[in-house]
Amino acid sequence: MSAVRAAVMPAPGAPIELREYPEPRLTAGSAVLATLYSEVCGTDVHLWRGRLSGVPYPIIPGHVSVGRIAALRGELRDIDGVPFREGDVAAFLDVHGSCGACYYCLVAKQTTRCPRRKVYGITYGAADGLLGGWTERIWIPPGVKLIRLPDGLTPETYIGGGCGLVTAFHAVQRAGVRLGDFVVVLGAGPVGQSAIAFSVLSGADQVLAIGAPDERLQAARRMGADATLSIDAMPHAERLAAVRERTGGRGADVVIEAAGAPEAVVQGAELCRDGGVLVVAGQYTDNGDASWNVHALLNRKHLEVRGCWGCDFSHFYGAIQVQARQQHRFPWKDQVTRSFTLDQAEQALRAVEARTLLKAAIVPGR
Amino acid sequence: MSAVRAAVMPAPGAPIELREYPEPRLTAGSAVLATLYSEVCGTDVHLWRGRLSGVPYPIIPGHVSVGRIAALRGELRDIDGVPFREGDVAAFLDVHGSCGACYYCLVAKQTTRCPRRKVYGITYGAADGLLGGWTERIWIPPGVKLIRLPDGLTPETYIGGGCGLVTAFHAVQRAGVRLGDFVVVLGAGPVGQSAIAFSVLSGADQVLAIGAPDERLQAARRMGADATLSIDAMPHAERLAAVRERTGGRGADVVIEAAGAPEAVVQGAELCRDGGVLVVAGQYTDNGDASWNVHALLNRKHLEVRGCWGCDFSHFYGAIQVQARQQHRFPWKDQVTRSFTLDQAEQALRAVEARTLLKAAIVPGR
Amino acid sequence: MSAVRAAVMPAPGAPIELREYPEPRLTAGSAVLATLYSEVCGTDVHLWRGRLSGVPYPIIPGHVSVGRIAALRGELRDIDGVPFREGDVAAFLDVHGSCGACYYCLVAKQTTRCPRRKVYGITYGAADGLLGGWTERIWIPPGVKLIRLPDGLTPETYIGGGCGLVTAFHAVQRAGVRLGDFVVVLGAGPVGQSAIAFSVLSGADQVLAIGAPDERLQAARRMGADATLSIDAMPHAERLAAVRERTGGRGADVVIEAAGAPEAVVQGAELCRDGGVLVVAGQYTDNGDASWNVHALLNRKHLEVRGCWGCDFSHFYGAIQVQARQQHRFPWKDQVTRSFTLDQAEQALRAVEARTLLKAAIVPGR
Amino acid sequence: MSAVRAAVMPAPGAPIELREYPEPRLTAGSAVLATLYSEVCGTDVHLWRGRLSGVPYPIIPGHVSVGRIAALRGELRDIDGVPFREGDVAAFLDVHGSCGACYYCLVAKQTTRCPRRKVYGITYGAADGLLGGWTERIWIPPGVKLIRLPDGLTPETYIGGGCGLVTAFHAVQRAGVRLGDFVVVLGAGPVGQSAIAFSVLSGADQVLAIGAPDERLQAARRMGADATLSIDAMPHAERLAAVRERTGGRGADVVIEAAGAPEAVVQGAELCRDGGVLVVAGQYTDNGDASWNVHALLNRKHLEVRGCWGCDFSHFYGAIQVQARQQHRFPWKDQVTRSFTLDQAEQALRAVEARTLLKAAIVPGR
Repeated sequence: MSAVRAAVMPAPGAPIELREYPEPRLTAGSAVLATLYSEVCGTDVHLWRGRLSGVPYPIIPGHVSVGRIAALRGELRDIDGVPFREGDVAAFLDVHGSCGACYYCLVAKQTTRCPRRKVYGITYGAADGLLGGWTERIWIPPGVKLIRLPDGLTPETYIGGGCGLVTAFHAVQRAGVRLGDFVVVLGAGPVGQSAIAFSVLSGADQVLAIGAPDERLQAARRMGADATLSIDAMPHAERLAAVRERTGGRGADVVIEAAGAPEAVVQGAELCRDGGVLVVAGQYTDNGDASWNVHALLNRKHLEVRGCWGCDFSHFYGAIQVQARQQHRFPWKDQVTRSFTLDQAEQALRAVEARTLLKAAIVPGR
Repeated sequence: MSAVRAAVMPAPGAPIELREYPEPRLTAGSAVLATLYSEVCGTDVHLWRGRLSGVPYPIIPGHVSVGRIAALRGELRDIDGVPFREGDVAAFLDVHGSCGACYYCLVAKQTTRCPRRKVYGITYGAADGLLGGWTERIWIPPGVKLIRLPDGLTPETYIGGGCGLVTAFHAVQRAGVRLGDFVVVLGAGPVGQSAIAFSVLSGADQVLAIGAPDERLQAARRMGADATLSIDAMPHAERLAAVRERTGGRGADVVIEAAGAPEAVVQGAELCRDGGVLVVAGQYTDNGDASWNVHALLNRKHLEVRGCWGCDFSHFYGAIQVQARQQHRFPWKDQVTRSFTLDQAEQALRAVEARTLLKAAIVPGR
Repeated sequence: MSAVRAAVMPAPGAPIELREYPEPRLTAGSAVLATLYSEVCGTDVHLWRGRLSGVPYPIIPGHVSVGRIAALRGELRDIDGVPFREGDVAAFLDVHGSCGACYYCLVAKQTTRCPRRKVYGITYGAADGLLGGWTERIWIPPGVKLIRLPDGLTPETYIGGGCGLVTAFHAVQRAGVRLGDFVVVLGAGPVGQSAIAFSVLSGADQVLAIGAPDERLQAARRMGADATLSIDAMPHAERLAAVRERTGGRGADVVIEAAGAPEAVVQGAELCRDGGVLVVAGQYTDNGDASWNVHALLNRKHLEVRGCWGCDFSHFYGAIQVQARQQHRFPWKDQVTRSFTLDQAEQALRAVEARTLLKAAIVPGR
Repeated sequence: MSAVRAAVMPAPGAPIELREYPEPRLTAGSAVLATLYSEVCGTDVHLWRGRLSGVPYPIIPGHVSVGRIAALRGELRDIDGVPFREGDVAAFLDVHGSCGACYYCLVAKQTTRCPRRKVYGITYGAADGLLGGWTERIWIPPGVKLIRLPDGLTPETYIGGGCGLVTAFHAVQRAGVRLGDFVVVLGAGPVGQSAIAFSVLSGADQVLAIGAPDERLQAARRMGADATLSIDAMPHAERLAAVRERTGGRGADVVIEAAGAPEAVVQGAELCRDGGVLVVAGQYTDNGDASWNVHALLNRKHLEVRGCWGCDFSHFYGAIQVQARQQHRFPWKDQVTRSFTLDQAEQALRAVEARTLLKAAIVPGR
């Protein structure tokens, strides 16, 4: 059995290296995917820059990936009970391992806060196995859920949505977007792009996207935004005035923050109408504090602010089903503006960091 | 017809004056109350110190009051359709005049954000009529709702709850306190005191109150708090540790902020467990900004923060019904620790400001 | 001032008559509409057949209508505060007069159950004034809300939606349709047609419509149904099997009953998946009892059944805004398959009763 | 190792027999409880009378039990991560084995509808092991959750609540009882008794219990009912009138059906106010159909009917925590009106069937 090549991040700041690993050994209920695509996400840049704590370097990055089942042992079934077979194209639940035994799993029913939860490409070291996507083979140990790509959903389209697709699905669901709402999406990166599409699909009367650069705003309009405002070209006060003008002076019913800068949270609160809803989904890493007037923006405004962390199976499953049906209306597949081979992984990271492309994917080949 | 005496606040900082006004003239659907009690609330101190904007001084303060119907013209009915009669003891809806014609009244159904809403003792000038409670007679123009005190609910007990009773009812309802929740109430003033009682009544497993001074914490325990922590005696980090110790290391399911200091909002977020709920009800005036880490406290924590502004008829009605049934279990009547006559109104204000008593009431006599 | 012609329903079963009335006299805050279109709805057939109780015959039918403001006195404003002017095209809130003073208006906040609520064309006698739409002029007394048709929304499209548009908006909102849901709509009449469109707009993954006759099912597909099943061609057991086959054996997440026959409620419960939601919106008149197995269909199924009565301003407002934006995607305007003059009103009733057309409108001319 | 005695139900209608089984063999993560109490529930009568389908007779009945950990292997922890030790007193989750892999577990998040779910004493045959409570030793295989009885909660009190405690907790939570609600509980058996207590604890303004016989109604008052009505002494029309009289003519905000007779569901709908909530929790077995007027009781009434099936860990956990804190206010411990030894199990069944006692418990001794 030949060795498996993987792109490894040895330590924060260190050059990405190609290393070789043995094929995973299969136990009952486990599988191996032949990687088709693995996403290069903003989080991977954070990992490379050492902005997340507790990461067991060296790691094999790549938390959202799609592959073909190269081998499986025993019985793996999808949620409808249909068994997986070799050759099936499947995504896997990068966020997994919630324990099913703690307060968050069993009482609060908020499994994304389970302390034992694991994430491919982030919480595993390379020594733990092929548990990241920047490699030719991905190991699916027993208990990691696979989701079969529905008929007609291509791997390209799925990876075009990527991590942002699922995060956005959760954020829009948590926002409770309703028929007729005026929605503002802050941020035009991958999460923002999918948040626009899911807001439109949830019945938003209008979706306004705020971000930069211009190519991302153009993409936002293709993903369904009725209008876009550029943070490069227009200061916040003018953006606020523009939103109020479109909403009878009131502000947005719902704002989804997918921007990342702490001040975006405060701006989001200002853009909401009184009694509106602000979802905070973009503060995945610690970019510092934000200072707000809690009288005007929370209390008097009767605002509802909902933090939104991670995702669970329901978000993966729902996002994929919806994407499969709506892929012709929303051009997720165009979001991967460039693919890279394993030995170009560092180049991919640098391009994502420089924002010279909307999204990159690793195509391991073999 | 004899003149009506009122305690008037001529301008921010100016001495309170006794002035005389003519009896209100009755039109169809209106009434006059002979004041039994009118509350002296923290908001009255804010008014006196000029901390609220747009107040049409001189004003007759007193937004929550109770009186006996001295006169009425035409037909006034309660919500069950039973007509009011002279001699009935009734509270009135200090917050009223929502227009029934705007977006907030009709579409958002959040009438506390109706821009035309009026409040007795705050948004009316003395020139508008006897539309505040620090007077012998209170004018009830057509459209202002009266609520009959239920059998057995004394005016003393009702005014003991006062403005805080209704605000707390709204806050606890907005918190969605559920059977078995661990609740922290920040602030041991009148809103906090009633928030404790309503949290207990809503099924909280434990209610922990945090505030000062000690007499207020003693009162908090009489109102149902299982335990209290003093902000004078214990720094926030220790209070946080104490809450975590009582909650399996997780933090509170629900925190109700009724404290007023902006940092209480941030502390409240820290005291919540992941996925918990923080209601912000204490930032009634602008006490400045608060700086938070939006990554750790909102996004990763999956927190829900709910601003809570004012109240509507449902909160008045609900709070009074519950108070009537529960008055023997929770000593609202003891919250008025001193009554003052009209010509002692300034003295009452100074006492409330100095926090030398929990709550003061004006008893206009005649 | 010339007389106003109206089509009057003198009594159940009696021929519709043309009668003449004086122009309405305007008081401050009132208006008169020159009728453009008034709907002929299934309810009008019920009125004519005497199936509703407490109707003050003779009446001028027509509860949903649209007209041009022919005259107004004083100031009438829309919910954004913009004044209405003569010549504006506006719809009016047929369901109005909720009292703002009872338990349902103030505490339960379910104004559609206010006992004092009035409905144009149903709860008024012709002696009360021109308070129905089958007439050249409609009286808008003070307090009846007008809604300006948004730019680009034609009166033809609005009346194509008609009463069903607003009822369906409420039903879909009450159903809480979410992104990815599988929705079944029972009934292909006007309520069902709009329920299909609003379900699609709310993010339903698939919408299946069940009804008859075939022309209505064709219309249902044009309104967005992914598939239709004919109750004429297929027994319920087969329809149930077909729904289960499309849903992994489980049944629909949401069923919206807009059919009218009592057995449709039971069939709706069977079509739901365990833990699903059934909205009952079609039982507007008493068509008799339905017998269910409450163990299997409610308790063990963990089903949620939500009755849905009438509508309030928020549903009118929301439905019109959404319709204006979505009119090119969903052919509401094609639902009026024939217009009738005032003297053809009885002919219109007979056509609606015979279901020889999907919807009829009265065009009073003048 | 000595043999373990168990009371076995060989087949529907057959005499209960004492049989002997070997001690369970322990694998890692499993435990054995020395039974202290096992409930004799109405469901056990149903089992004996053959009213449930798919039961693998012979069975060892007893789905809710409490015992002392006699032996364990490996590490078992509670949800706070604290390890269980021999000698600890613990309840176990009778309803368990939801698969964590199906649509209901992962997407709908309604695990009580998971098709693979198992129940002690009902879905296991005696051949499967000591998986019922009417025995000296109860087997806890890996994956079955244990809940430690909190300090001060005696096994007597816990078993006094029993199966009804947890079912009622779920029902009251699903009802969403809110501060100030008027609640009617239909049925005065064990589920009804706990539903009364939990409704009171959730802030119900008044709780009215309807049932029979008189001793159960007396117990209902001790469990917190403000008033009771006897179905033996008063026909439904009079009970309806009595509820309306107490609620301003409107009816109850919430009705919890815990009665079992199909007509109780219809009566519950009639007892609700317009826009109220009816929870159906009592139709655990198929007692036949109920016929309703779906126009008057669902559609026009704008009613919400919520079926409520089974329970999950959150209900067990929540119910036990609340019971521990509230045991001195609500006399759960008095609900077991008689205890029986293993060889008296049939006698216990007959007593429960005859309703000569409120609840029976098996005390296996040894």
